[in-house]
Amino acid sequence: MTTAPRLHDAIAELAGFNDDPEAGGITREVYTPTYAGALNRVARWMREAGLETRLDAVGNLFGRWAGSEPDAPLVLTGSHVDTTLNAGRYDGVLGVLGAIEAVRLLRAAGTAPRRSIELVAWAGEEPRFGTGCVGSRAAAGALSRADLDRLRDRDGVSMADALRGAGHDPDRLPDARIEPAGVHVLVELHIEQGAVLEDAGEPIGVVTAIAAPHDFRLTLRGAATHAGATPMHLRRDALAGAAEAMTALERIARASASGTTVGTVGVLRVRPGAINVVPGEVELDVDVRDADRAAREQVVEDVLAETRAIAARRGLEVEVAPIVDDAPVACDPRVIEAAAAAAEELGLPYRRMTSGAYHDAMVMGARVPIGMIFVPSAGGISHHPDEHTDPDDLDRGVRVLAGTLARLAG
Amino acid sequence: MTTAPRLHDAIAELAGFNDDPEAGGITREVYTPTYAGALNRVARWMREAGLETRLDAVGNLFGRWAGSEPDAPLVLTGSHVDTTLNAGRYDGVLGVLGAIEAVRLLRAAGTAPRRSIELVAWAGEEPRFGTGCVGSRAAAGALSRADLDRLRDRDGVSMADALRGAGHDPDRLPDARIEPAGVHVLVELHIEQGAVLEDAGEPIGVVTAIAAPHDFRLTLRGAATHAGATPMHLRRDALAGAAEAMTALERIARASASGTTVGTVGVLRVRPGAINVVPGEVELDVDVRDADRAAREQVVEDVLAETRAIAARRGLEVEVAPIVDDAPVACDPRVIEAAAAAAEELGLPYRRMTSGAYHDAMVMGARVPIGMIFVPSAGGISHHPDEHTDPDDLDRGVRVLAGTLARLAG
Repeated sequence: MTTAPRLHDAIAELAGFNDDPEAGGITREVYTPTYAGALNRVARWMREAGLETRLDAVGNLFGRWAGSEPDAPLVLTGSHVDTTLNAGRYDGVLGVLGAIEAVRLLRAAGTAPRRSIELVAWAGEEPRFGTGCVGSRAAAGALSRADLDRLRDRDGVSMADALRGAGHDPDRLPDARIEPAGVHVLVELHIEQGAVLEDAGEPIGVVTAIAAPHDFRLTLRGAATHAGATPMHLRRDALAGAAEAMTALERIARASASGTTVGTVGVLRVRPGAINVVPGEVELDVDVRDADRAAREQVVEDVLAETRAIAARRGLEVEVAPIVDDAPVACDPRVIEAAAAAAEELGLPYRRMTSGAYHDAMVMGARVPIGMIFVPSAGGISHHPDEHTDPDDLDRGVRVLAGTLARLAG
Repeated sequence: MTTAPRLHDAIAELAGFNDDPEAGGITREVYTPTYAGALNRVARWMREAGLETRLDAVGNLFGRWAGSEPDAPLVLTGSHVDTTLNAGRYDGVLGVLGAIEAVRLLRAAGTAPRRSIELVAWAGEEPRFGTGCVGSRAAAGALSRADLDRLRDRDGVSMADALRGAGHDPDRLPDARIEPAGVHVLVELHIEQGAVLEDAGEPIGVVTAIAAPHDFRLTLRGAATHAGATPMHLRRDALAGAAEAMTALERIARASASGTTVGTVGVLRVRPGAINVVPGEVELDVDVRDADRAAREQVVEDVLAETRAIAARRGLEVEVAPIVDDAPVACDPRVIEAAAAAAEELGLPYRRMTSGAYHDAMVMGARVPIGMIFVPSAGGISHHPDEHTDPDDLDRGVRVLAGTLARLAG
């Protein structure tokens, strides 16, 4: 059973829908003409695989394979085909094109599912409008009409206007809502976006929980004095304090009770930012994640306490502003066991693991039982032109997804 | 002997020459019409104090008080009246207006100097064209005709064009050169721009040496991976490495052999700079200064060695690019002793200290014997609208300068 050539051709073809090919990666933001073209191509593949397609009010694309009990709660599977700027070709795309391939495999094997299987390409998983997962948030009923006017992209275009431009009616937002009672489980196949599987030499990850971020902005304020004329002992250097706080964050995250907490400072701004001036103010955007919320919150608490102690010792002021504080989602045991059984049946080593990145499945996980299947990411690289997964690993992921869907659909 | 009212009126009047009063501070960059107006006003004060004025080829303004032996090497004193953006009113200005006031005091006391005393307002001490001290560099013969075309301000205007716009001829640059044989010593009165005098409760600083910077850019490169999906032990976080290196810089500078080395990271850039991405690349502009060059170079060497060790442990690459490596200048013992004697005669406590900031005197110090006198800066604040020196401290500085000039001119 070799799926790779057909799947790879589709992945390569979809990569051609690209607003910035010169940059080396793929740029295909939701609700752009390029995205609409890609989504049409995906819908055509869905139809070629025998699926009945429809677009909902926010542009989520569905492809339905009716089961023998069409009224039974269905099995939902999919991901997204929008990208960040200058991204790779697998993030999201694998979960959509791989699901189409899985359906083909199941059909070829003569499978006749009891429950309907519905494929989905969620709109806007990547944060064009600041907040990501807007399509799945709409389906989960976690997006309001006011949000559509409030959320804006970097050019100031509101999500409502972007929807209109793509031919949708923002006032029909409630129509996008999916009733939890109609969904048995949701499964998402995705590249890991980390290097845990590669590091362990295992081809399949069965996700047990999706970590969620607690993000906040720390501002440290000292005194912007002359870098030459201010002796070390008379400084109130906001960046030196921030350096100490960042080292504390790293140490505290490494020592977390769960062993899985991660802590990152991805954004740092120095003011005034001149080589001959001691930094008077530094802003740090801190991201702390874990599937274990208690362990995560303990890390956040310890980091804030230590940062305040560092600041007090250095005569710095500290300000903490919230950014986001999401709840981690545990995967459903039925999905976990179905995926594990599918991998075992194929003789594929697998690892139970948490997802550090968040996904549409996390958003839907607040409403319906979910699960995820991971394949390795070379070097853990994602959101980058160098994002890569070995063709054989893509193939293995699709086969595990097919086996999982067959088990869950009955 | 009260000088303050007259001096303060002049400082306040000069502060009115300001291109951006709304910002709260003073913006008066060299070779602008506003600067030309300020310089004309200074020349008028010089003439009112009995000095014979002239502008040189790059706009350095001189005011001469002929001594009884007009051919003897003269005593030069002064500073600058240009400012950075949104700056204070004392930086540079005190050394020019204070020197005029000192001449008035000496004349009023019936002093008849043997050597001529020449006042100077150097052009462009502040780095409008990237490099500072352009007037004194021209006088020291440290600026070439090619430099005038190469040096450009933030709007791309070359120094040559700025000179032409101010009525000068850049081709006459060599005329600005001052022959070292004609200068006995140079003395500069300046605000400290640090908080050492304030911290010690002393009104006068007698500068023994001017520290010089060794600046370099450090680039640390790791891997820009997903902040959620990359466990702590699989990261190559360039910013976490930079944090450790910054803490090392602070520790090593504090422990330097001279006890006076300062180390600062004033500029830091994080790439890609997204909250959910582990920083893959960080640039740090590092400034290390000391009047003790050997101690300074040991700090630079130790910081680079420790940074390389940190990077190796974390799997980061390190690149080091030079920015500037200036030589510190020792002050001339005759100037130091004259200033110390002047302070003692006035019953003023003084402190022998190094200048952490660099000045026109440092540039001229490569050619002629120099010295400096400092007065306190409130809170060590400079290059900021809050820059302030107590009126009585300004007065004390001017009287010490007068006594120093009288001793040096004989």
